[in-house]
Amino acid sequence: MNEDDSAGEHEPDSRPGPENQPRRRTGGRSARVREAVLKATAELIAEQGHERIPIAEIAERSGVHQTSIYRRWRTTNAIVLDLSQERLSSVSAIPDTGSLRGDLLAYAHRAAASLEGPDAAVLLRALIAARAEAPDADSAPNALASRGQDLQAMLDRAVSRGEPRLRMTDVLDGILAPLYLRTLFRVPGIDDAYLDSLVTKTLTAAAT
Amino acid sequence: MNEDDSAGEHEPDSRPGPENQPRRRTGGRSARVREAVLKATAELIAEQGHERIPIAEIAERSGVHQTSIYRRWRTTNAIVLDLSQERLSSVSAIPDTGSLRGDLLAYAHRAAASLEGPDAAVLLRALIAARAEAPDADSAPNALASRGQDLQAMLDRAVSRGEPRLRMTDVLDGILAPLYLRTLFRVPGIDDAYLDSLVTKTLTAAAT
Repeated sequence: MNEDDSAGEHEPDSRPGPENQPRRRTGGRSARVREAVLKATAELIAEQGHERIPIAEIAERSGVHQTSIYRRWRTTNAIVLDLSQERLSSVSAIPDTGSLRGDLLAYAHRAAASLEGPDAAVLLRALIAARAEAPDADSAPNALASRGQDLQAMLDRAVSRGEPRLRMTDVLDGILAPLYLRTLFRVPGIDDAYLDSLVTKTLTAAAT
Repeated sequence: MNEDDSAGEHEPDSRPGPENQPRRRTGGRSARVREAVLKATAELIAEQGHERIPIAEIAERSGVHQTSIYRRWRTTNAIVLDLSQERLSSVSAIPDTGSLRGDLLAYAHRAAASLEGPDAAVLLRALIAARAEAPDADSAPNALASRGQDLQAMLDRAVSRGEPRLRMTDVLDGILAPLYLRTLFRVPGIDDAYLDSLVTKTLTAAAT
């Protein structure tokens, strides 16, 4: 691993200083590099239909020096994991609709939306492959656990309103698992009625 | 695709005629060739941890001539699909326990057992990959639909006993999807209590 990428000849985005940097700063150089690398990787996955992209190709597409990519992620697997987690491991800003049913429906709709598009299934498979090929289950971040953490606040709110206490696994098993399975096996029929039925079944099972 | 593999120098199993064939015949030469090829492929997947096995390697391991393999399956993907479907797409001889709950528990236990072992997750991923990489969803056999067909008799028996009518999707979403998700994401905890809870939730949701 070569530490000498100070020349940065493939990092045009990192050249302009703050004084002549017209576009919005959202987290500095490190965040911009990450954004460029993840965007390039997503494009290459969508174009090629698989996740086995050489780092050299990601460097070329992103304009980020290959050595910088190696230093930060080491492998394509790690980049794909990073990308997949950003896209699939969290449903940002889960809304507070005032009812558990409303929150679950909003969650189900956002989860379904995150699985739309030609690259979503590839990213989901890549996430699974990256986790599967990690030396042991603990060494790869657990996307399901991340999803679960996002859910906890929603479930806690319901309890504070006097609604039933759902466990994270109730939501993962009852809503996310069927959506993932249909995405992975290309089963059509993820529509409003289906999402509604998953929420109803999850609430019914939990109420007993 | 070369049709000339009549020499068959790598097909020792096909040489002896019935008159000097000591071992059990279970479906003839074609079935034996398929069995040998699927067994070799399963071994190579378990050894290598992925499903991208060159057909030449499968030919060498199985003792079946490469041309015969090409003629029957065309691609490794097709072999892996065949293997995965045999292992994962059906739970053979679903028992008649006399109650829907008993039948579902037996089904859940068999499904969980089919997902044990180091090669099960790879086969499941391979099944998903093969389906994902098919030109369109209709051109690859639908493993979930196969599972569903196996289930129909079980669900019909319940109705004939006056028990609730479950749909195949209730079972696929409520039992198979969580098991697949945990297998794919290496989430531990598929035990008797968990299988019991999935069956209870599925029955509760269906009873309303």
